[in-house]
Amino acid sequence: MDIKKYVIEKCRLAKNASRKLSYTGTLAKNKALLNMGKALLKNSDYIIDENKKDVKNARNKGISESLIDRLMLDDKRIENMANTLNDTAALPDPVGEVTKMWKRPNGIRIGKMRVPLGTIGIIYEARPNVTVDAAALCIKSGNAVILKGGSEAINSNIAIYNVISKACEESGIEKGAIQFIDITDRESVEVMMKLNEYIDVLIPRGGAGLIKNVVKNSTVPVIETGLGNCHVYVDSDADFEMAENIVINAKTQRPGVCNAMETLLVHKDIADKFLPHMCQRLKALNVEIRGCDITRKIVEDILPATDDDWATEFLDLILAIKVVPSIDDAIEHIYKYGTKHSEVIVTNNYFNSEKFLKEVDAAAVYVNASSRFTDGGQFGFGGEIGISTQKLHARGPMGLNELTTSKYIIYGDGQIRE
Amino acid sequence: MDIKKYVIEKCRLAKNASRKLSYTGTLAKNKALLNMGKALLKNSDYIIDENKKDVKNARNKGISESLIDRLMLDDKRIENMANTLNDTAALPDPVGEVTKMWKRPNGIRIGKMRVPLGTIGIIYEARPNVTVDAAALCIKSGNAVILKGGSEAINSNIAIYNVISKACEESGIEKGAIQFIDITDRESVEVMMKLNEYIDVLIPRGGAGLIKNVVKNSTVPVIETGLGNCHVYVDSDADFEMAENIVINAKTQRPGVCNAMETLLVHKDIADKFLPHMCQRLKALNVEIRGCDITRKIVEDILPATDDDWATEFLDLILAIKVVPSIDDAIEHIYKYGTKHSEVIVTNNYFNSEKFLKEVDAAAVYVNASSRFTDGGQFGFGGEIGISTQKLHARGPMGLNELTTSKYIIYGDGQIRE
Repeated sequence: MDIKKYVIEKCRLAKNASRKLSYTGTLAKNKALLNMGKALLKNSDYIIDENKKDVKNARNKGISESLIDRLMLDDKRIENMANTLNDTAALPDPVGEVTKMWKRPNGIRIGKMRVPLGTIGIIYEARPNVTVDAAALCIKSGNAVILKGGSEAINSNIAIYNVISKACEESGIEKGAIQFIDITDRESVEVMMKLNEYIDVLIPRGGAGLIKNVVKNSTVPVIETGLGNCHVYVDSDADFEMAENIVINAKTQRPGVCNAMETLLVHKDIADKFLPHMCQRLKALNVEIRGCDITRKIVEDILPATDDDWATEFLDLILAIKVVPSIDDAIEHIYKYGTKHSEVIVTNNYFNSEKFLKEVDAAAVYVNASSRFTDGGQFGFGGEIGISTQKLHARGPMGLNELTTSKYIIYGDGQIRE
Repeated sequence: MDIKKYVIEKCRLAKNASRKLSYTGTLAKNKALLNMGKALLKNSDYIIDENKKDVKNARNKGISESLIDRLMLDDKRIENMANTLNDTAALPDPVGEVTKMWKRPNGIRIGKMRVPLGTIGIIYEARPNVTVDAAALCIKSGNAVILKGGSEAINSNIAIYNVISKACEESGIEKGAIQFIDITDRESVEVMMKLNEYIDVLIPRGGAGLIKNVVKNSTVPVIETGLGNCHVYVDSDADFEMAENIVINAKTQRPGVCNAMETLLVHKDIADKFLPHMCQRLKALNVEIRGCDITRKIVEDILPATDDDWATEFLDLILAIKVVPSIDDAIEHIYKYGTKHSEVIVTNNYFNSEKFLKEVDAAAVYVNASSRFTDGGQFGFGGEIGISTQKLHARGPMGLNELTTSKYIIYGDGQIRE
């Protein structure tokens, strides 16, 4: 098989479908989403059977049980996917919204209208639910989507794709609006990265290696997602109980995700009072602590933190702790080692809270709340296609609005430029 | 000289300055802009002397007088540059604006705040006024700027840069906020295109060759500007006089710019009544017409249009004309040959006006007005850094708002994620 030709043809079909899809009405899109949900439930046996092949292959490869758990589908999980489709249907349609409109002195009226981006390529790994999440958000926002899933979930993904794309098309959505690259060869990603003609934006979702490869090599515009070396800074004026709860939540509630905390910064004036009980609670939750010299003088049995630790996104039950002389040093540390994802200050000092909000440059800057809220659902966007860690186009959780661009619509009555 | 080291150092200095500049107050930025304007007026003799070197070099190279006119500076033009700085100071500061703020059920308040992009690289050709325009917009929007001007204006640009950067720094803006790459070697552009560490976005302004090179080779995010193969479609229901005036304005008011019209599409039902007088007026203004077969049957002495003509941005007093059977064919032609810049329908038919607005995908879609309004000043943005022809981040004229990204600021009182 000529992989290049095959991938180009899939992308061409998506681009083609994107044209009519871009101005397909809300009711038609919602109907399709609901039918896709029904089709998933109706075909759950087929999907689960295909999923079993992936699980078996994963076991044969000796993949860890925690990864296999992420891969595995059952009736409950398929119901959740159907719910995602129903929930997306219930969200407001961003397309056609005129976010502002104004009149110029010469009488022309200019409106800024949200329109779809066109064709969105999603390159992802592992979890089969991304297939549904991405398709739902793209269709709702009027975009055609090209899905390129990982090899571990290939049978599950193909089954899900077969079911939802058929239901989508039978509901009257332009044929070809959802495409799935059903080959796992890496060459297909190489081809997608150069297809500026057919793909408007690429969103890689997965490990750091995948994301770096796409950012470095794609000529198609990319939205970078994922990397998060997040900090919590406990100021001298912090409420200790609040600080402890936020630290525990940010570190342990789900350590493997990008909005989890990786380094705790503590003001020197409170370190000897705050750290002992804090570390006791962390250790009770099996968190490995790597501390600076001062931390290690205050609390026993803590490994030394290296410069590498400050720069590492552990994505695990590991926490680096550093005692800092001032809020300025905390901000400096975050500037030096942070990835501009989510940063937290815990304080009761008004001036410091405002200083932190102003001077820390990140997608989300928090006062007195856990970094774990950086998420489309938690922000109230209904769903998310990923969390952008770049500055261009979208920053932070990306919902339906972030899958649109704008078109200026101008109403005149014969105006010409003098 | 090690060009690579030199360019990297300039960009590093800009990145460094961008940090404090990002939260420098509006009054301080305005003061700097006004002082930069005063400094230009005070040093106009120096700038004009340096400009004379560029003009002399251009004459020696046999560059056309129209290009030399664009290069030449006099007191009046320096006054205009100073006015640009004063006008930019008077514009509202986009930085810190919270465009929306909402509360979640758990009580956290989330605000979406405009913040600077960071460091913006501008690669441009010819006109020395871009040096001032770009610096003014970047400083006002809290961004550091790295200017890379063309070789034709190198002496003028260095002089302008010396004057404004000194005035900027003396006004208290972080040292290094304006950088100028004062070597004309192409290698410096190559270096900038790979400096993701120090440059947040690159904006190439100039000819198609420059823009293509940057879009194709830059790993730094790029905003593509400039290409405009724009159409005016005269519908069967159009007011002829309005249509003629719009066509004349869109084609001849300034033919060398991206929002000028390149192809006129005319509905077949009115072609024989509309085209003769239309072409008479165009010819009287020295417009060369290249027509389709039907056009050439209606109007005498018209060259045949080739497929290439439909796809060409003439940027000159040349117009292609095609008679189309329906509005759908007009939209189809625009889809096939257009560059999604500015598209116009002239009609008095409500249904067709809405259809055109909905189905034509472009940065700006007009009903009954000239395409020449696609411009930051004409849109009321006060100034523009370019016209984006891509979909990501910004589309159409880019003013101060488009030089910002967002930061979510979150106010909590101890919230953690369940």
